[in-house]
Amino acid sequence: MRVNGVPYRSIWLGDDDESVCIIDQTKLPFQFVTYTLNTVKDAAHAIRSMMVRGAPLIGATAAYGVALAMRDDPSDRSLTSAHELLKATRPTAVNLAWALDGMRTRLANLPPAQRRDLAYRRAAEVCDQDVAICEAIGTHGANMIEGMHARTPKERPFNILTHCNAGWLATVDWGTALAPIYRAHDAGLSIHVWVDETRPRNQGAALTAWELGMHGVPHTVITDNAGGHLMQRGKVDLVIVGTDRTTARGDVCNKIGTYLKALSAHANGIPFYVAAPSTSIDWSIDDGISGIPIEERDEREVTHIFGKTRDGALEDIQLVPDGTRALNVAFDVTPARYVTGLITERGICAASRDGLRALFPQHVRTQS
Amino acid sequence: MRVNGVPYRSIWLGDDDESVCIIDQTKLPFQFVTYTLNTVKDAAHAIRSMMVRGAPLIGATAAYGVALAMRDDPSDRSLTSAHELLKATRPTAVNLAWALDGMRTRLANLPPAQRRDLAYRRAAEVCDQDVAICEAIGTHGANMIEGMHARTPKERPFNILTHCNAGWLATVDWGTALAPIYRAHDAGLSIHVWVDETRPRNQGAALTAWELGMHGVPHTVITDNAGGHLMQRGKVDLVIVGTDRTTARGDVCNKIGTYLKALSAHANGIPFYVAAPSTSIDWSIDDGISGIPIEERDEREVTHIFGKTRDGALEDIQLVPDGTRALNVAFDVTPARYVTGLITERGICAASRDGLRALFPQHVRTQS
Repeated sequence: MRVNGVPYRSIWLGDDDESVCIIDQTKLPFQFVTYTLNTVKDAAHAIRSMMVRGAPLIGATAAYGVALAMRDDPSDRSLTSAHELLKATRPTAVNLAWALDGMRTRLANLPPAQRRDLAYRRAAEVCDQDVAICEAIGTHGANMIEGMHARTPKERPFNILTHCNAGWLATVDWGTALAPIYRAHDAGLSIHVWVDETRPRNQGAALTAWELGMHGVPHTVITDNAGGHLMQRGKVDLVIVGTDRTTARGDVCNKIGTYLKALSAHANGIPFYVAAPSTSIDWSIDDGISGIPIEERDEREVTHIFGKTRDGALEDIQLVPDGTRALNVAFDVTPARYVTGLITERGICAASRDGLRALFPQHVRTQS
Repeated sequence: MRVNGVPYRSIWLGDDDESVCIIDQTKLPFQFVTYTLNTVKDAAHAIRSMMVRGAPLIGATAAYGVALAMRDDPSDRSLTSAHELLKATRPTAVNLAWALDGMRTRLANLPPAQRRDLAYRRAAEVCDQDVAICEAIGTHGANMIEGMHARTPKERPFNILTHCNAGWLATVDWGTALAPIYRAHDAGLSIHVWVDETRPRNQGAALTAWELGMHGVPHTVITDNAGGHLMQRGKVDLVIVGTDRTTARGDVCNKIGTYLKALSAHANGIPFYVAAPSTSIDWSIDDGISGIPIEERDEREVTHIFGKTRDGALEDIQLVPDGTRALNVAFDVTPARYVTGLITERGICAASRDGLRALFPQHVRTQS
């Protein structure tokens, strides 16, 4: 996607073809700053500090993190320690484990001298594959939107609500939930997006609003509290969100607050779709509530908030009385019964074992 | 209630027995500043700028606003213009209209020379009546909590979730939703409160957390997104919220986001109670969704947030990209079917015409 007209991916190789460049997303939307990863530790730090975030981009960054480790030291010990270091950065998104396990499987049986090159090649493949997946999700989702749009009144835009950021900044390019929106907008449909600000880290207000603004998609930021009211009043035609981990039966673990929007969509008869690349599906788990580890982050993300002060400085400011405790749960699980459908790279399916089996027959075990 | 050990109401007469003192709630939780209202314009400004907020306190402030107008000029014209000025300050809470209409009815038939004294007397009555109502809500609600508490495991506190601020700062004293919590805590029950921060104005993080901290009630601030997850995981035993307007059939209009919490409580079998003083009930309306005007406020309350900077300054900081638009809907409506019960000053009833009729037979029309 373009930033002030210049095409970017969210992760790319530096001019030396070895270092890895990212956008420091903690500075957005106020400053567009790129950052160079030179070591596996840099990669782990970038993931942990959320300079990069979003399940697909975490996976891609981890893959390049292993490549950086292999550049420094292609030994077995280095491979194992890179794997462990990166895997421990964030617990919820399954793409991280998927990317890392895929790297290890491919590299472990190779002689160390060949690991460096293969690791870089494989990391590039992870990225290119993610772009292809997101493009396909965009195509399937845009076709769906086109059909829905045709059935809604033409005197107003088609209103889509999204939560958090599942745009190109969360992936390598295009995005998951936002890819269909970009495609539909580019195809000339009149689309308007309600952007949940998505506390505590406000990835909606900061990142989704920035992305949509750069691409010229009409949008309005709302508080996380407002979506229910808008749905109740017929102001939302469709909800699309991303997912950090999808189970084999279609439960969806995504940014905290997604579940509340799913309940509201369900109560108001509004379609609730999840853009779910197959790399986000954890085929080993059925029940998302008991099976998916939910990350708890620093309470300071709740007690403070990041923004631009009157004099232009970027700063965290305090929101609560001194000494107040907070709980910061980063994700929640939306049971499959509240999900109208999953938009995958292979098409759209019901959020169910049967739905997923039809698209991914090699993965879904027959239920005993 | 006490502020650093000193008893306060949220509104009181100054030493001259004519001016009216309030707490400037826009400075909390960082600064405890009182402010003196000398004219009806001061009162209108205090309501509009949300130095005072909360349906009952808005009503009390409006009553004193009329008294200040009568002190300056007890003419018919002054009475009419005070009524109009104050009524236009906030559209949703019904207590405002209730207090103002009551003042006008009592004053209009009096000779102007007698209006000033009666206005002050009536405003004091409005305040004392509110305190009595809140105390009664506290008693009924605490009895209910005691019964629920007896049926939950003793190895953990009884967890109550509340949204926004329906504490003593929203009323004259005690609060509505928080009154039962204060009573139950004072009775020695082990209570813990999940405090929704309540964007955009964060009355939960700023005011409820401050109140509970001053009173020593254990509490934890959470984002508005988190309540659904906590309910799904059995971490919420009870939800209690306030109301800005309750309809004759029990629909509840309260701070934006209340509806989402009600949906989640319903989906997870958690009791959802609304502390509803009879002064908040609009007996003329049945359907809250079509009948209650929903205030839209300045989008700056969404694009910016108020807090304390690193160097201790109080400031609004920007959260979104430059030029981003926002929508700021201040309230939503929770249909009665999601409300387990209403805690009124006359006891607890079902959120229905029949429930309300049993407690307030003089008000509820028989449905034709």
